[in-house]
Amino acid sequence: MSMLAPGPIEPVLVDGQWRASQSPLGSFRAEDPARGEKIGPTFPISSAADIEAALAAGAAVAAELSAAPPAHIADFLDAYADAIDADAAALVVLASAETALAAETRLRKVELPRTSGQLRQAAQAVRSYSWTQPVIDTGAGLRTHRAPLGKPVLVFGPNNFPYAFNAISGSDFASAIAARNPVIAKAHPLHPATSQRLAQLAHDALRRSGLPAAAVQMLYHFDNALGLQLAGDARLGAIGFTGSRAGGLALKAAADKAGVPMYAELSSINPVFLLPRALAERGTALAQEFFASCTMGSGQFCTNPGLVMVPEGATGDAFVTAAQAQFAGDSPRILFSRSGQENVLRAIAALKSAGAQVLSGGSAGEGGGYHIESTLLAIDAPRFLADPLALQTEAFGPVSLIVRTRDVSEMVEIAAVLEGSLTGTIYRAADGSDDTAWSAIAAVLRYKVGRLIANKMPTGVAVSAAMNHGGPFPSTTHPGFTAVGMPAAIHRFSALHSYDGVPEGLLPVELRDGNPEGMQRLIDGRWSDAALTGSA
Amino acid sequence: MSMLAPGPIEPVLVDGQWRASQSPLGSFRAEDPARGEKIGPTFPISSAADIEAALAAGAAVAAELSAAPPAHIADFLDAYADAIDADAAALVVLASAETALAAETRLRKVELPRTSGQLRQAAQAVRSYSWTQPVIDTGAGLRTHRAPLGKPVLVFGPNNFPYAFNAISGSDFASAIAARNPVIAKAHPLHPATSQRLAQLAHDALRRSGLPAAAVQMLYHFDNALGLQLAGDARLGAIGFTGSRAGGLALKAAADKAGVPMYAELSSINPVFLLPRALAERGTALAQEFFASCTMGSGQFCTNPGLVMVPEGATGDAFVTAAQAQFAGDSPRILFSRSGQENVLRAIAALKSAGAQVLSGGSAGEGGGYHIESTLLAIDAPRFLADPLALQTEAFGPVSLIVRTRDVSEMVEIAAVLEGSLTGTIYRAADGSDDTAWSAIAAVLRYKVGRLIANKMPTGVAVSAAMNHGGPFPSTTHPGFTAVGMPAAIHRFSALHSYDGVPEGLLPVELRDGNPEGMQRLIDGRWSDAALTGSA
Repeated sequence: MSMLAPGPIEPVLVDGQWRASQSPLGSFRAEDPARGEKIGPTFPISSAADIEAALAAGAAVAAELSAAPPAHIADFLDAYADAIDADAAALVVLASAETALAAETRLRKVELPRTSGQLRQAAQAVRSYSWTQPVIDTGAGLRTHRAPLGKPVLVFGPNNFPYAFNAISGSDFASAIAARNPVIAKAHPLHPATSQRLAQLAHDALRRSGLPAAAVQMLYHFDNALGLQLAGDARLGAIGFTGSRAGGLALKAAADKAGVPMYAELSSINPVFLLPRALAERGTALAQEFFASCTMGSGQFCTNPGLVMVPEGATGDAFVTAAQAQFAGDSPRILFSRSGQENVLRAIAALKSAGAQVLSGGSAGEGGGYHIESTLLAIDAPRFLADPLALQTEAFGPVSLIVRTRDVSEMVEIAAVLEGSLTGTIYRAADGSDDTAWSAIAAVLRYKVGRLIANKMPTGVAVSAAMNHGGPFPSTTHPGFTAVGMPAAIHRFSALHSYDGVPEGLLPVELRDGNPEGMQRLIDGRWSDAALTGSA
Repeated sequence: MSMLAPGPIEPVLVDGQWRASQSPLGSFRAEDPARGEKIGPTFPISSAADIEAALAAGAAVAAELSAAPPAHIADFLDAYADAIDADAAALVVLASAETALAAETRLRKVELPRTSGQLRQAAQAVRSYSWTQPVIDTGAGLRTHRAPLGKPVLVFGPNNFPYAFNAISGSDFASAIAARNPVIAKAHPLHPATSQRLAQLAHDALRRSGLPAAAVQMLYHFDNALGLQLAGDARLGAIGFTGSRAGGLALKAAADKAGVPMYAELSSINPVFLLPRALAERGTALAQEFFASCTMGSGQFCTNPGLVMVPEGATGDAFVTAAQAQFAGDSPRILFSRSGQENVLRAIAALKSAGAQVLSGGSAGEGGGYHIESTLLAIDAPRFLADPLALQTEAFGPVSLIVRTRDVSEMVEIAAVLEGSLTGTIYRAADGSDDTAWSAIAAVLRYKVGRLIANKMPTGVAVSAAMNHGGPFPSTTHPGFTAVGMPAAIHRFSALHSYDGVPEGLLPVELRDGNPEGMQRLIDGRWSDAALTGSA
């Protein structure tokens, strides 16, 4: 970030057009995290003028978008997905330069198809009306479904997924648009050129869709004070946020005051419990799995395994030795930014000062740019239990803390003091010999996590109707919603609308007697794709 | 309320037993609202000691209750419902004395059976597992359902429904218990003896159910400071609240800070739009309907029609004249309390000072006790639009404001400035001749209300799966949830739980392959009551 640059500044996407930022408060450029050098064009730090223009334009088209035919919404989402796939080469060049994430193995082969696929799943949820969950009580004359909020949704994207969670292309975006709400995207300032390219594709697809052009807007950056003011504006219908705990909670306090629901994904250490028989069965393989999951994407995942419970004794020792060897043999990993590097070093220092011992890594290492050594720490259970909050400090990087436990009851004690996480994993023996321990730990861990995983590291997050990428506070701000998986993720950006005694001709299509599209509806307590005959 | 009384003080229901309040901060008695005199026994104002004991006991049994067989939960709800029905005579004597609500027509014939019926609907949702909404993705190995929070739920009951919304017997209570969460009920201090009797019935039913006795606890009263401290305690899983806007928002701020979801039903003026042809068709009948709805229960309903848009011209004049005659012919109505009376008088004063004219009533009237005259006010649309917030001041009593409108576009303008309400009603002609106006108003009103009603006053709230007793802020604190109607009301007190790769034998019953109970589950995108064969 810098003061206002003299050169040309890229335009923002406001009110249906690319236009100059009004009175920008400053400007910034992306950085190559591997070298710590500025790259790419200059982007504006928006002032209150841009924000007000975006809010007003979003609010002005909300009613029109609410009333848009679902087919237009679905066509837009599909066209945008196709455009992303067609533009993959250019998008990968931009995102790999801005994030240092692996171009082929991560960006092109995994994250980009995930992103277009997610948009298509949202389109499918729109076409099938599945997200609207129509409920009909023929006796009472009441019909209810999920409907748009009638207000714009503000989306804050994180630093770690330049496509799949980008405010202009990720799950929050797809979900909010699927529910026919205008989106004001706040791109992450660490990948502005990637976000710009995505926004151009979205804007082009939108113009051909027949939807209002101001339905999709994007700003690159604004300061914290303006962010808080925006989050607390009652013209917003909801906020989607993925990012840091401190930033998210500050925004949520502002949103709460205005009565704006905010769905924030904040922080998560994703505890992993290794049961004795599983370790005996395949301890070395588990050490490799663990190392791969912890260091993938330089560990910059919200589902990174940050805390691993390992039994004392020979098999546990063997696991730790194997894991330590893997970490020690690794080269320093590149983080997204200097502040990311500083935060990880600060977290490692906090863990150390709470009693954790460094088994491997622990410093920035060689290599310039924003590197960090893959870092493994360890502590024993009594010390962990003596200071459990400090020892759950999230390090957003290739860092994990091993807790050595004497027995299963100590694992249960640890589960009981855990903060809310997105995931919790238990590794068990294939022959069921660990399952008494599983049940004891799961009975406690279940209420601390959104997704309970068996025998798999937590970093894979399938885009599925049965996914829960959510969890108890503080991993998210509401335990009942998922940020990933259609149609459930769409529910976050919907309102419940009931019709009482309203005649057939004045009902929305989902709630009419006829059901030519074969929607699934809950009619008098039974899910059915049938039409009603003359019940109204 | 008084300082600590010298006489015996009733016990509180804490940790599975009726026991003396610990170090109560004071005591209070109920009042006969018709005469303003103290009645009944003396109840404690709890100190932090009672609150801490209830929280600790609720948290201690949460895991056991989470793991309880659903049949035990359903049996308890059914047994409690039966006990309420069997005890109707005594419950009606207590509630009519404490609230002055009509013993037969309101309490015995309507509210009491509604309450036991609601408990039975919750039991039915438990037996059918319908509230758990199982979702299975056979390809991804992911299975998800709604599950208990694993923490106690705090429920604040309102003054206006001594049974159906009572913290110990109402919809929030039934919903939280159905989801297998312990309940800490904060009874309303205006009907303590009614709440005590209900709690005795609940406690007896619970002891026979095999569920942990501390699953249901009740305190009568505590001061605001302790309430805020309790609402902000992270040991709570959620809060249900029905009551005043100021009190609810203060509690919500405390809960928000601790990450505790709070479902609050706050205030609602429930706008009613009378379209010209409907008025021409049946204006006098509508005036009677309106008067009956506005004065029923002394107007102390969250769905009271507090704002009525009436066209200028002869048919509108006739409606107003007929309504005015009804209000003028009415005797003063009894409110629940002196503070309720003061609040209504303050709201009338606020409406008057914002320009509303009193057509009838406006003062406390004769009769002693906490009476209020049924009050009709009027204003023209331009004046309403000049100060719309002040003119939406809620008067929690038999009070309504008529807004005279020149044309439909003025009705649309009014709809656009309305705050969120639980309901919005439009009266239309049976022959469809108002329907262009309906569509113009509904397009705006739809996003301001939870339930859109045709040709019916809003005061009836059916307990139905298709009900939405909810709405946009500030009528409630989240537009996606309903406080009434099973199974949807239960969702508020549930967490989303996903299982990833977990083998059949370690899954909860809803998510196993076999489906002997014929649950409805969303399997690979289709709702089905079939079993799965060998997919895991």
